[in-house]
Amino acid sequence: MAPVTNARVLFSAIPKGYPIPGETTVYDTTQTIDLENVPLNGGILIKVLILSVDPYMRGRLRAPEVKSYSPPFTLGEPMAGGGIGVVLRSELAGVAAGAHVRGSLPHQQYVVAPGLTMLEVLERDPRLPWSVYIGVAGMPGETSYMGWREYSRAKQGEVAFVTAGAGPVGSMVIQIAKQDGLKVIASAGSEEKVAFMKKIGADVAFNYKTTDTRAVLEKEGPVDVYWDNVGGDTLDAAMQFASNHARFIECGQISGYNTGPQPMKNPTLIVSKSLSINGFIVGNLYPKYKAEFAAEVVPRLARGEYKFTEDVTRGLDRLGDALLAVLKGENTGKAVVVVAEE
Amino acid sequence: MAPVTNARVLFSAIPKGYPIPGETTVYDTTQTIDLENVPLNGGILIKVLILSVDPYMRGRLRAPEVKSYSPPFTLGEPMAGGGIGVVLRSELAGVAAGAHVRGSLPHQQYVVAPGLTMLEVLERDPRLPWSVYIGVAGMPGETSYMGWREYSRAKQGEVAFVTAGAGPVGSMVIQIAKQDGLKVIASAGSEEKVAFMKKIGADVAFNYKTTDTRAVLEKEGPVDVYWDNVGGDTLDAAMQFASNHARFIECGQISGYNTGPQPMKNPTLIVSKSLSINGFIVGNLYPKYKAEFAAEVVPRLARGEYKFTEDVTRGLDRLGDALLAVLKGENTGKAVVVVAEE
Repeated sequence: MAPVTNARVLFSAIPKGYPIPGETTVYDTTQTIDLENVPLNGGILIKVLILSVDPYMRGRLRAPEVKSYSPPFTLGEPMAGGGIGVVLRSELAGVAAGAHVRGSLPHQQYVVAPGLTMLEVLERDPRLPWSVYIGVAGMPGETSYMGWREYSRAKQGEVAFVTAGAGPVGSMVIQIAKQDGLKVIASAGSEEKVAFMKKIGADVAFNYKTTDTRAVLEKEGPVDVYWDNVGGDTLDAAMQFASNHARFIECGQISGYNTGPQPMKNPTLIVSKSLSINGFIVGNLYPKYKAEFAAEVVPRLARGEYKFTEDVTRGLDRLGDALLAVLKGENTGKAVVVVAEE
Repeated sequence: MAPVTNARVLFSAIPKGYPIPGETTVYDTTQTIDLENVPLNGGILIKVLILSVDPYMRGRLRAPEVKSYSPPFTLGEPMAGGGIGVVLRSELAGVAAGAHVRGSLPHQQYVVAPGLTMLEVLERDPRLPWSVYIGVAGMPGETSYMGWREYSRAKQGEVAFVTAGAGPVGSMVIQIAKQDGLKVIASAGSEEKVAFMKKIGADVAFNYKTTDTRAVLEKEGPVDVYWDNVGGDTLDAAMQFASNHARFIECGQISGYNTGPQPMKNPTLIVSKSLSINGFIVGNLYPKYKAEFAAEVVPRLARGEYKFTEDVTRGLDRLGDALLAVLKGENTGKAVVVVAEE
């Protein structure tokens, strides 16, 4: 078989604000790959099926000298992120052609991986599509479950406030908080998202673009557990209407990802309200909760006990657009890019 | 015996910035008290000996409609705070004349208290003066010990950064952190304070008014445990030079008490560095640590194993000045006002 195109999405320039498809993230079709003959050197050849698009990826589009928790992408090289692929050929013991792998994959159609350092062989529950394994059954769902278990110290009857509540992380947090017996206030940026948050059980769901967050929190709060996906002024509002001893789970602060950090206006409230504010990176919680998540959460997802939505983009050439949409909050549900069918 | 003057320090006007003696806090000698005949109605008559002057008192000089953790003082009435007195007369079972009491006392020379709701009868270790019982053996020392035990999760070899390190809280934190095997960086605002911090064991002590905090933290950090007494730009600096998973103990933010809250410039670091930030009010930790403190810390103080200094002001008429000095950081060591000798 002749070589085929191995399309990639390259990190081409450091974005100043939002990443611009065609400029900072460029779809490139100049490379080819000979699928039958490419040397594997003991590794595996993967056909990429689905890629995950997540807010944290904005942080990797940066200059290498800027330190942060996730490594920067390399200029001129493909971006990378969570994904699922199928093994086409294998020289690796224990991995057969046809197996599925999940993990960090470069944003390209075909990948030769030297081993399973960043990947795991994955079995699928027949009731769940593969895409869910990079969504609520994958990193975003793990983020919700593990962050909540570790930091919420939630008690029945308390009030939770969840931002970005229609996204994969927020929507799982809403459902877990309801299971724990909390009243849940949830916000997002469209009527469609508000409808979804109500459907999955939020007691109070509102569109922060058309409804004043402080007015809602004053009426429905005070807030005992704040799940922060957005930061900025919403974080200030949550502090203003927090109860004493409230727990703030700092999962993300997307409001500052493209514009630079936004200040917290009144940090003295941390003292006067005895707030407990915990930031976390989900990978650090894997040793404690990974097995529990697989045993508890994935089966419940398969039985339909948790609801979720996906925002599917088809074609690697549109990955840059999908990332921009996520950073602008235009997706409803977990954003995934289908690179290929099996 | 004829009635005697019962001098008081009144909360006379809400300060805009620093409290101004003679204006916002007024020494008043218009009241008298008949010590032999004043009716006790089953309570006790207390002669106030020593009053504590602490930064948190600034927060009580506010309008009643502003909510905060400690109740506001009442305009036209005496201020109040931690203090020690001797019982002159008693109609209360179990409390004899001559007993000493500690607790919340109004800022006046003589007090009729209906009971022991806000007071406790106190025994003194003969090796310690009474004043220490409102200092390192009292609320400030409890703040250091209980806050550190509850929130530091300190491990030997880690680096602590302690602000206001020459004050009663900070100086105890330095000594407890050294006991726990940490390297301690400490800051304060005068050369005299720097010398004291070195004397009590700080590995690195500096005057933040003449030495750049960021330069010190960059060289001596990163910071694993940050004890915050000051907030403001120093909090930003500590976040900038914090290690991943650093613990921030938010005890106070004096930099904003008189000027209004100062923003935290980059709260996204909470997420990217997995910071754990805990504010606390020491009273909430009493049930867990009060007995432990009395059994562990006070005997060590009496044996001279912890060092401390006091900044003694003599005369209730100078309490307003003492409070202003504390808020300006002009005291070295625990600020106390001696109202009367026994």
